[in-house]
Amino acid sequence: MNASAIPLEPVDSFDYVIFGATGDLTMRKLLPALYRRFAEGQVPADARIVGTARSPLDDEAYRERARVALRQHLRPDEIIDATLNRFLRLVHYVSLNGADSAGNWDGLKALLASNASDERIRVFYLATSPDLYGDIARNVAEKGLRSDRSRIVLEKPIGTDLETARKVNDGVGKHFPENSIYRIDHYLGKEAVQNIIALRFANPMLERMWDRESIEYVQITAAETVGLEGRGGYYDGSGALRDMIQNHLLQVLTVVAMERPSSLDADALRDEKVRVLKSLKPLDPRNLGENVARGQYVQGNTGGKPVPAYREELPGEAPSNTETFVALKAEIDNARWRGVPFYLRSGKRMPEKLTEVVVQFRAGEPGLFGEARPGSRLVIRVQPNESVTLPLFVKHPGNGFGLDEVDALSPLGQPERIRYRDSYEGLMLDAVKGSPALFVRKDETEAAWEWVTPILEGWRNAADGPDAYEAGTWGPESARELLRRSGHRWVEDVAAWA
Amino acid sequence: MNASAIPLEPVDSFDYVIFGATGDLTMRKLLPALYRRFAEGQVPADARIVGTARSPLDDEAYRERARVALRQHLRPDEIIDATLNRFLRLVHYVSLNGADSAGNWDGLKALLASNASDERIRVFYLATSPDLYGDIARNVAEKGLRSDRSRIVLEKPIGTDLETARKVNDGVGKHFPENSIYRIDHYLGKEAVQNIIALRFANPMLERMWDRESIEYVQITAAETVGLEGRGGYYDGSGALRDMIQNHLLQVLTVVAMERPSSLDADALRDEKVRVLKSLKPLDPRNLGENVARGQYVQGNTGGKPVPAYREELPGEAPSNTETFVALKAEIDNARWRGVPFYLRSGKRMPEKLTEVVVQFRAGEPGLFGEARPGSRLVIRVQPNESVTLPLFVKHPGNGFGLDEVDALSPLGQPERIRYRDSYEGLMLDAVKGSPALFVRKDETEAAWEWVTPILEGWRNAADGPDAYEAGTWGPESARELLRRSGHRWVEDVAAWA
Repeated sequence: MNASAIPLEPVDSFDYVIFGATGDLTMRKLLPALYRRFAEGQVPADARIVGTARSPLDDEAYRERARVALRQHLRPDEIIDATLNRFLRLVHYVSLNGADSAGNWDGLKALLASNASDERIRVFYLATSPDLYGDIARNVAEKGLRSDRSRIVLEKPIGTDLETARKVNDGVGKHFPENSIYRIDHYLGKEAVQNIIALRFANPMLERMWDRESIEYVQITAAETVGLEGRGGYYDGSGALRDMIQNHLLQVLTVVAMERPSSLDADALRDEKVRVLKSLKPLDPRNLGENVARGQYVQGNTGGKPVPAYREELPGEAPSNTETFVALKAEIDNARWRGVPFYLRSGKRMPEKLTEVVVQFRAGEPGLFGEARPGSRLVIRVQPNESVTLPLFVKHPGNGFGLDEVDALSPLGQPERIRYRDSYEGLMLDAVKGSPALFVRKDETEAAWEWVTPILEGWRNAADGPDAYEAGTWGPESARELLRRSGHRWVEDVAAWA
Repeated sequence: MNASAIPLEPVDSFDYVIFGATGDLTMRKLLPALYRRFAEGQVPADARIVGTARSPLDDEAYRERARVALRQHLRPDEIIDATLNRFLRLVHYVSLNGADSAGNWDGLKALLASNASDERIRVFYLATSPDLYGDIARNVAEKGLRSDRSRIVLEKPIGTDLETARKVNDGVGKHFPENSIYRIDHYLGKEAVQNIIALRFANPMLERMWDRESIEYVQITAAETVGLEGRGGYYDGSGALRDMIQNHLLQVLTVVAMERPSSLDADALRDEKVRVLKSLKPLDPRNLGENVARGQYVQGNTGGKPVPAYREELPGEAPSNTETFVALKAEIDNARWRGVPFYLRSGKRMPEKLTEVVVQFRAGEPGLFGEARPGSRLVIRVQPNESVTLPLFVKHPGNGFGLDEVDALSPLGQPERIRYRDSYEGLMLDAVKGSPALFVRKDETEAAWEWVTPILEGWRNAADGPDAYEAGTWGPESARELLRRSGHRWVEDVAAWA
């Protein structure tokens, strides 16, 4: 049971080329993830991590930046000086003055050639603006940087709508076969999300309950307490639907809803996931209010402190129609799920930081126990404090057979069960190992974009903008209304009411 | 959820006549139970508790004994002097120089008559030797002590075999209709045992798993750490089979195994329970070893202290073939359970005091998750610390989809869920209220005796006696062998091995 007691095998040696190596994601997530895998002995001593970006830095200067970032983003007890020094010796930097053909790719080519073999794995990790993905892929190919064991990893966002997503996919797809393209959705790297698959298909007790007969509705929530945090420029051009729903929450929906795959092989799994996305009932852009609520926070309080409105956080306090909150009702038009709403929502400046899946079971018929058994809820908490809570009806203490609902809590995030502190750790090495199961296939991305397109279109043509909600609340009234129309309630309203 | 927050209704007024009022059970269980119900406001101010026994005592002398006993057997924080004094004012004593007709019943008759009405409930609680039950019932009837709302409560044991049980039942049954006869099995008064009914029939998640398709076997254990504790005379004439299996463990088996009753009414429930008992596959007295192991403890250690052998605890250290441990394999010959062993065991001088039901689910087929999913266990802990533990398979932390079993624990015995501190509290008032659902019907007792008869017969004719087991162990090797033959293991052996 003690995860850390089982040693992990080192992976085959590799060159990990990161485009966008001076960026926030690299410093905050990618280098710490590689360091942790190195510290646990999974990274061979002759592996190389090659940062590239526009900045004119040499290896030493980049290593210094990396050192500072690692000290900042790792926990103090994870940093062992000798280990850190050994790790940084694997780190190199090549400056690249442009991702297109005009850029100077020779330095990168020379570095990779200095330790080349057919066996050596090359991972090209694209953490730049997605506009550049096509160009980078083309140049990696045309400059002869690919080895026989190459993969290309694409960070989100893959485009901003179906058309631009296709452009990215096609641009990269011209130079890399689909089975070497690894689209990251770090929610799939989360243990609790992967655990949905194990929970559903390794527990007959749950598998038998997993359909429209037993389930009344599902809620998937990803809530943040933070506001813009300096991401103003990017976020305002994107909004919650593109930033959270199109990718992360629809991915979680696929693992909650998919049919039992024939195996856990990457394509068997992804075939089932894409079937879910393609079974989503299309929304009508002219009648969006039926299925979608959007909000933007105004002044309020989080954590007891007053916080400004979204617009006040934007550069120049520009007026904006960008949604910082979306709630929507999705329906899956297949035999298992027909008529069962999947409520998805994500927002900034919510009352708590929380990602969870709530499965609401149907109420029982009145029968043996007098009044009807109320509907109970299974909760899969993704963060913080991963857990699974199974609902259980027991008798009320004392005489008679009145029922109480009690919860059977199974905490999954105990220290001894933690292997990866961050979802990037597993995913980054999956790319090395050539395990694409937890990455998003082209058809998945595009099916997800296709489904959200009517929402983007409806909003573009709408007379009004997002509904205001006070910072520190669970979003606008329209989000509650969305469920109320079906006789349902968000989980926090049930708890408050009970 | 807070049980004590819900006030309990007072019951109708009553006279509670206890035969055997100076005995251990009355002092240790019955008076404390009535005191607690009184302290919680359920006992009307004009109720009376009438002790009878041979000892020539007056009310005051008996109240003093009762006071001492209550101070000894209640927790200090339960005793409020004013409440205790008010309670003792309800207590009376009538000495009875014999349960048969020759006895002087006039005192009891006069006392009951002094506050008689058709409405007033009379409960006759028989806590004497069962030999006397018939005589007491006859005299209560013939002396005109019954009211229109009378019940008679019979303590265990109801006989020592089928024949004597029938004699007791028929003796009492001549004077009381079956629906006014309340045979106590205090295991049915335990919340966790009643909860088996709620768990099974209010949770579709479990109800769908409750059959031979999903369950490989069931273990029901009632283990004590104590040895004879001065009960030498009674116990040596009885043994674990009569003292624990025939009544308590077979009762637990019935609630684990019964079909869904049409209602929770007393007879609907007991009809289903008796169907289980009648479906038990008869044992062959000539081939008992296949299904039954018996043991008697020899010197050993419990709680770190050396303890003597059973024989050394007997008066005069007499040789004895009485079993202090029984393990047996029962099979229920119906569509739900055919082929699923129910392993029952009970013993003295076990390593821990423990009553629990372990439901062992079948292992999964090898499939999605590589190797087969091992069989998991649901555990209903009756005592100490009532709880339900649901098994759950989740993925092993880190890469891949290896499975780990984790437990989802639902503690049921939290302070706020405790209504009754002892199982007699609910049962004693059920008799007042006329709710026989948690009492054992005549046909249940007799069916249980009928099933154990071949064991008694086999042992009587056996050349050898019980197998020796060291005090402080889980019984003799033959108990392990019993399961091993079917490829099964007792739960503590699984845990030790895992």
